[in-house]
Amino acid sequence: MTENRDDAPLHADAPRGVRIPAGWTGSVTEIDPRSTPGFDGDKAAGRQRLVELDDQLDDLQERLFADGRAGAADRSVLLVLQGMDTSGKGGIIRHVVGAMDPQGVDITAFKAPTDEEKKHDFLWRIRPHVPRPGQIGVFDRSHYEDVLIHRVHGWADEDEIQRRYGAIEAFERELVARGTVVVKVMLHISYAEQGERLMERLERPDKHWKFNPGDVDERAHWPAYMEAYDRALAATSTEQAPWHVIPADRKWYARIAVQQLLLDALRTIDPQWPAADFDVEEQIARLRATMD
Amino acid sequence: MTENRDDAPLHADAPRGVRIPAGWTGSVTEIDPRSTPGFDGDKAAGRQRLVELDDQLDDLQERLFADGRAGAADRSVLLVLQGMDTSGKGGIIRHVVGAMDPQGVDITAFKAPTDEEKKHDFLWRIRPHVPRPGQIGVFDRSHYEDVLIHRVHGWADEDEIQRRYGAIEAFERELVARGTVVVKVMLHISYAEQGERLMERLERPDKHWKFNPGDVDERAHWPAYMEAYDRALAATSTEQAPWHVIPADRKWYARIAVQQLLLDALRTIDPQWPAADFDVEEQIARLRATMD
Repeated sequence: MTENRDDAPLHADAPRGVRIPAGWTGSVTEIDPRSTPGFDGDKAAGRQRLVELDDQLDDLQERLFADGRAGAADRSVLLVLQGMDTSGKGGIIRHVVGAMDPQGVDITAFKAPTDEEKKHDFLWRIRPHVPRPGQIGVFDRSHYEDVLIHRVHGWADEDEIQRRYGAIEAFERELVARGTVVVKVMLHISYAEQGERLMERLERPDKHWKFNPGDVDERAHWPAYMEAYDRALAATSTEQAPWHVIPADRKWYARIAVQQLLLDALRTIDPQWPAADFDVEEQIARLRATMD
Repeated sequence: MTENRDDAPLHADAPRGVRIPAGWTGSVTEIDPRSTPGFDGDKAAGRQRLVELDDQLDDLQERLFADGRAGAADRSVLLVLQGMDTSGKGGIIRHVVGAMDPQGVDITAFKAPTDEEKKHDFLWRIRPHVPRPGQIGVFDRSHYEDVLIHRVHGWADEDEIQRRYGAIEAFERELVARGTVVVKVMLHISYAEQGERLMERLERPDKHWKFNPGDVDERAHWPAYMEAYDRALAATSTEQAPWHVIPADRKWYARIAVQQLLLDALRTIDPQWPAADFDVEEQIARLRATMD
């Protein structure tokens, strides 16, 4: 079943969460975090799909890597992962991104900015980490924190937030123009699910290191965060760099959805094995002469 | 069978290639590239072992990562991969390193130095890439190129090569002193096997991108490279940062051997889940108050 789907065109039914159109006026709160849009299988079917499509992802990623090494083109993918604490960003990196050859993947986790970084415009610390040709870059949090947590806590006023939306749109347009496919994902969990996941971190000593008392403080701002996401997605979901809201209360669904979006991105690029820039027969003869 | 082995102490029989003692006077040419020291199983058994021990590797790596995040210690692993063209460095990264969470792994491929890098001492471009606390750093080629290809081609004279051995020894001693376990691996293939593998790259269009006519030129210097390895290993295999020569004509063996060395390194560190730096019961109560 999944195989028919994935040989089909990009617009075919498949798990991709909810694509946010340009000019959107909705709210993420209208999207059910337990839903599985584009996929009618259960958890077992989802897990099977993840494993089955890994080979396709791996193959396409290797072609992209080869394409980058050949230096003929400047094509890459940038996966931007956003979501509330415990929404599963780490699990996506481990189980979806981790299925690809690590030589072709470049992951950057953006923490609170350093004093040095705070002296510059918010995109200054982002730019050095955009993917090189042939690479799949992954942002674990990103420049969007500067219009999310900054809005929620009032660290930037409305004018400044608006300016940042514009700067982000220009930045991403520039990335797309140079050949990067930008995949923006909001992992969408429910308030109740976050409570359960934080509780698990507190109840298991091997998870204590993932917990920070500040996580409970931020949780108190949940409605403000959802509103900040609504505004940010509305302002920055564009035709060339759309947002996808991925229901993430079911981890298995979030993983197959991000996997699908990466497959879509790579198929859009359609990387081909680079042609030899040497005379193959001549090199075979040279090599053969060394093999007595 | 493998499970008994791996609960056993570090000195137990296991695939680790050939450890080069300090003061070594041997030659890599005395080590059979098709041998499988420490392992008497066949290819199927080797592949099974690789999969079986992945979970242990993954678990230990996550503990190391947690340890690094907690900031209490400064422990890390550095895997240095050296070997002739086609010796399987990429396969090790893909199949052994790739089994771990990519968030905890930092891979650097060292190519020919840039003009800027050439202006500095040879370790200048290496230092920024040593692993951060909690990370497993991987060098795909390394500072050893400066005593290998440089010796073979006479780009550095004997005095300079000797100076570099000393600088490398001091550099690695410094890494070990700050808490990094240094694992140095030479993937050891035969001249005949390299010929086969280069031929495959020429015969398969999807492998052409991996081939460079210069590979055949370098192949002509094979004996000089082996001698350069002998000298480098003799000069830089120390008690704290020993070399392992891994017979690599059988790819499956090389992979389980590097996996074993990474397991050894992590068990030496023996990372523990960090203790909570907050009052767990208090946080559970705070969280519970948000979960009505």
